[in-house]
Amino acid sequence: MNEDLRTHRVLETALYVEDVDAVIAFYRDKLGFPVIAGDGGRITGLDAGGATVLLVFKRGGSARGVEFSGGRIPPCDGQGPTHLAFAIGADEFEEWEKLLVQRGVPIESRVTWERGGRSLYVRDPAGNSVELATPGVWSTY
Amino acid sequence: MNEDLRTHRVLETALYVEDVDAVIAFYRDKLGFPVIAGDGGRITGLDAGGATVLLVFKRGGSARGVEFSGGRIPPCDGQGPTHLAFAIGADEFEEWEKLLVQRGVPIESRVTWERGGRSLYVRDPAGNSVELATPGVWSTY
Repeated sequence: MNEDLRTHRVLETALYVEDVDAVIAFYRDKLGFPVIAGDGGRITGLDAGGATVLLVFKRGGSARGVEFSGGRIPPCDGQGPTHLAFAIGADEFEEWEKLLVQRGVPIESRVTWERGGRSLYVRDPAGNSVELATPGVWSTY
Repeated sequence: MNEDLRTHRVLETALYVEDVDAVIAFYRDKLGFPVIAGDGGRITGLDAGGATVLLVFKRGGSARGVEFSGGRIPPCDGQGPTHLAFAIGADEFEEWEKLLVQRGVPIESRVTWERGGRSLYVRDPAGNSVELATPGVWSTY
């Protein structure tokens, strides 16, 4: 038994929204996440970089779980406006800021952290608080 | 303007729970996440590996946002039972399974994906659906 087992990273973060199309369009077109799974129905997976995935669920659509040949995906559901953050490069802060404004996404807030990291905050169409953060936010990042 | 800007990964995923102590204890003691920020109050940060962070909020505690010298952290809030996933090594699946059972965490489900990846599903004390997934789940992982 290995007591020192550690997970390698956050792999997936999930949103549960009414207007799935609008939310997918935001992450795809404004943040540039490629859609890698799903069809805009019950669940859609978007590539957030670094082998991590943003899941967009239709609210209530997964409240019963899903049985398939590979096993049973347990039920889940949720409500926002939640928070999620994505890593960006230290030298990409201004580029992201300009790109988001150019794409019509208002910057809700800018934060400078004690360790020197900086964060941009925007809202997705469902009202979730989306942060883009450079290194220097956490002791681990 | 760099149209090819991409985020590097999911950096933070957030939970909003009533019993903050129980949820922090679960991720710290059962999944082995070091607590890296917070005091069990409004917000606690836990190290999920790979320079990513699990945030545990007291439900309602961040609904007004936070103003500090570095700027304004916008409001957020949420409800579960949501879903979150963490990456584990392909050769760690059985170790995790044994370790969780040894620590008194029931395995709710096991899934084998088309690409060959495998997932373990457990519940945290707030009812959130926690997945530990090996590579072979997504086209990117």
